[in-house]
Amino acid sequence: MKHEELREENCAIARSSAVLGERWVWPILRQSFNGARRFEEFQRGIGLARNILADRLNLLVSEGILVRKPDETGGSRQEYRLTAKGHALFPIYVAIMQWGNEWTGLPAPPVDLLHKPCGHRTTARVVCAECGDEITDHDTEPVVGRGLIMGRH
Amino acid sequence: MKHEELREENCAIARSSAVLGERWVWPILRQSFNGARRFEEFQRGIGLARNILADRLNLLVSEGILVRKPDETGGSRQEYRLTAKGHALFPIYVAIMQWGNEWTGLPAPPVDLLHKPCGHRTTARVVCAECGDEITDHDTEPVVGRGLIMGRH
Repeated sequence: MKHEELREENCAIARSSAVLGERWVWPILRQSFNGARRFEEFQRGIGLARNILADRLNLLVSEGILVRKPDETGGSRQEYRLTAKGHALFPIYVAIMQWGNEWTGLPAPPVDLLHKPCGHRTTARVVCAECGDEITDHDTEPVVGRGLIMGRH
Repeated sequence: MKHEELREENCAIARSSAVLGERWVWPILRQSFNGARRFEEFQRGIGLARNILADRLNLLVSEGILVRKPDETGGSRQEYRLTAKGHALFPIYVAIMQWGNEWTGLPAPPVDLLHKPCGHRTTARVVCAECGDEITDHDTEPVVGRGLIMGRH
């Protein structure tokens, strides 16, 4: 199994991690969620070598997570904007931020997320869409889904 | 900036992605959340070269996400078990699974998560712990946290 073959697996985790498990992807997405659009904004925000940054931005564009567009001011520069598929990564991003704040030795959260509709600095809870209770691994069990049955035929 | 330097940054995303943004970490965690403990169970479940798997298991042990323990049966084999820090990755894992089911071209979810307390096949929602509403990037704004102020002194 090679890493790029993960995207062909009949598994949501394998396919996702083919891109989300590549180096620098999350710092780049952090910049996007914080409003960065131009190459220089990503470069300054991460301090990453330009060739590696260009490579990872290309990956995210080819995966349909970012889209390259002409600069809104009409200049010759290009911008990198989140697509719907990219915006849909926000719940993962928030969950990573929360885990990082709790488990990576930070003395206190460097950044809080203000939830504008309610006005609170928020922490995220991952809850069951059916009953609203928090989801833990102890309380869940993986079961065969429709896609596994289809994959067998 | 080198990838391993991310873990020294005053940023929850950077520190988390120093490990969570390494290849094969999520397929390995998938195996753990599905009950794998022994090297051979991980190896069979992922189909990964043994030297790479050993390297990544070592990374997860050194990061305190897995712990190496003697086999429960008293044999000479070792097991890899999730620590509290590892179990705390489950909300991220669920959010990745959900995104993968929606956005990576799977015809249908191969695996569903049964939420045992309520008995439903669940989908996860990431909600604000304060108001209970779903969190989106449009509705949130990053603001300076205590850890950023401390970092300046």
